[in-house]
Amino acid sequence: MAEIKNVTAGIDIGGTNTVLGLVDRNGNILSKAAIATKGYNSFGKYINILSEKIQMLLNSKSDNFELKGIGIGAPNGNIFRGTIEHAANLDWKGVLPVAGLLKKEFNISVKVTNDANAAALGEKLFGNAKHIDNFIEITLGTGLGSGIFAEGKLLYGHSGFAGELGHVIVKENGRQCGCGRKGCLETYVSATGLLRTVKELLTDTEEVSLIRNTDFYTLTSKDIYDFAKKGDFLALKAFDFTAQILGKALADFTAVLSPEKIFLFGGLAEAGNLLLKPAETYMNENLLTVYKNTVSIEKSGLKHGEAAILGAAALIWEDIG
Amino acid sequence: MAEIKNVTAGIDIGGTNTVLGLVDRNGNILSKAAIATKGYNSFGKYINILSEKIQMLLNSKSDNFELKGIGIGAPNGNIFRGTIEHAANLDWKGVLPVAGLLKKEFNISVKVTNDANAAALGEKLFGNAKHIDNFIEITLGTGLGSGIFAEGKLLYGHSGFAGELGHVIVKENGRQCGCGRKGCLETYVSATGLLRTVKELLTDTEEVSLIRNTDFYTLTSKDIYDFAKKGDFLALKAFDFTAQILGKALADFTAVLSPEKIFLFGGLAEAGNLLLKPAETYMNENLLTVYKNTVSIEKSGLKHGEAAILGAAALIWEDIG
Repeated sequence: MAEIKNVTAGIDIGGTNTVLGLVDRNGNILSKAAIATKGYNSFGKYINILSEKIQMLLNSKSDNFELKGIGIGAPNGNIFRGTIEHAANLDWKGVLPVAGLLKKEFNISVKVTNDANAAALGEKLFGNAKHIDNFIEITLGTGLGSGIFAEGKLLYGHSGFAGELGHVIVKENGRQCGCGRKGCLETYVSATGLLRTVKELLTDTEEVSLIRNTDFYTLTSKDIYDFAKKGDFLALKAFDFTAQILGKALADFTAVLSPEKIFLFGGLAEAGNLLLKPAETYMNENLLTVYKNTVSIEKSGLKHGEAAILGAAALIWEDIG
Repeated sequence: MAEIKNVTAGIDIGGTNTVLGLVDRNGNILSKAAIATKGYNSFGKYINILSEKIQMLLNSKSDNFELKGIGIGAPNGNIFRGTIEHAANLDWKGVLPVAGLLKKEFNISVKVTNDANAAALGEKLFGNAKHIDNFIEITLGTGLGSGIFAEGKLLYGHSGFAGELGHVIVKENGRQCGCGRKGCLETYVSATGLLRTVKELLTDTEEVSLIRNTDFYTLTSKDIYDFAKKGDFLALKAFDFTAQILGKALADFTAVLSPEKIFLFGGLAEAGNLLLKPAETYMNENLLTVYKNTVSIEKSGLKHGEAAILGAAALIWEDIG
């Protein structure tokens, strides 16, 4: 019999797919799988299929795994109650007792938080924040998610939902946000936000741009990136505007949290010189003097396809050390 | 000989006066004194006089005090370096090694932080936050100071200067702030900010008001409070505007920190129904849904004349338990 390998299961529940993997203490994903998130009669049925998949990963022929716990990253995941609460992009409404149901199956510690908090934990345990006690992890996707480490601890706050930086209001009466309010950071700084900015520039300016010859409805933030790389002035302007809003917001967040580093993760974070560097310049221009040269913006150290699983798995590893 | 009483010294260094006291573990100030902060040849001379004053308090005839440490609240106090750094309202410029100098005199633990952080610690140890792990303490005076407790710990951040909520920018290209930037929260929400709002309303509106018959240059925020209490519409409008800016800012801070309570301290905090209640209403109107009913605004539990000494003393008590 092979030697026993201690692992935790990291599960990332997305709107379309659920990915899961077994992760060792060093952040190696030893085995992984995926199931659809949609298309089940009930949440209970989904949990059954998910449990079978976890069991399948554990029943490896070549390895002798010992499961130490299950960590879950999910939209509106609540660490205190072990629930997913009113997640807009899942089929099931209301409060879903996801931790309780999996605990019943595996009789083991199960923890759940939102995906950005999980990413911050992953950064701390397995990424570029190993020796950093104060940092902000920002995930840039369709929206803007964030997880905060303060004095060495992931910040959950009183509600369990601390760190919703995407919903800090950066423009009075600004863009309509999906949350029902106006001017939230994520309506400007996200893949969707960048496209809204491009649309605004197409409408409000007469800037010559190749984007004008493109079908706007199929346009992605990656396309804008490619246009900008080719020197398209409107695309460059859109990135500059995005970087400016982000930089100013990060200057404000620094006045609250005084982080040592701010890590960006996700598609837009790859746009290094178009976003990270100018955002850092705008942030520095707007920092209160005492914070000058105390904070930098960097790319996450987590790999794109692995971050979600590692972050979720870190929820358990952080407890058992 | 009387029984030994363990005490810490709490020192509050203000621009004009320095107040100090001996504080027991229960937050009783057993003895107190004050010296001028201005008028010394050197910072060393000031420290000598301050040390003599501490010694005088310790040499009580009726009590047998044992000094366990010295805590200091001071503008731009840095906990990591034990220094006061570039404080605008002190006579001495540059970096002042206040902790080191007092440690040399008393050979005892000496800690320094800014006055708002000290107030937050005082609230936690001796005030209304005893059982609260996530809260914000806001001190309203000439400016707006703040101290943050996150997950049970005072948040210093990487620089030691976390929690400068007064310098979060709430209006793009807003009012000029003493920090050199524009639109900082404290240019609106503070005694000075309230007076600026009154001035703006006097200029921009034709609102009938008794304030128009008053010498503006001698007007204080207390006067505005008195006018508002008498039903002066312009004064009421100024308070409502202040409450609105504060409430919206607190909604944003909640999206970062998710505190359970926000404590207001200082002169303006006394204006309960004119400021606290409307600020709470504006905050609630602007909260992201997940935070609804998770946070409230309350008055500090610290007494006005005692808070600074208690907070500074708490810097030491928090360590020795």
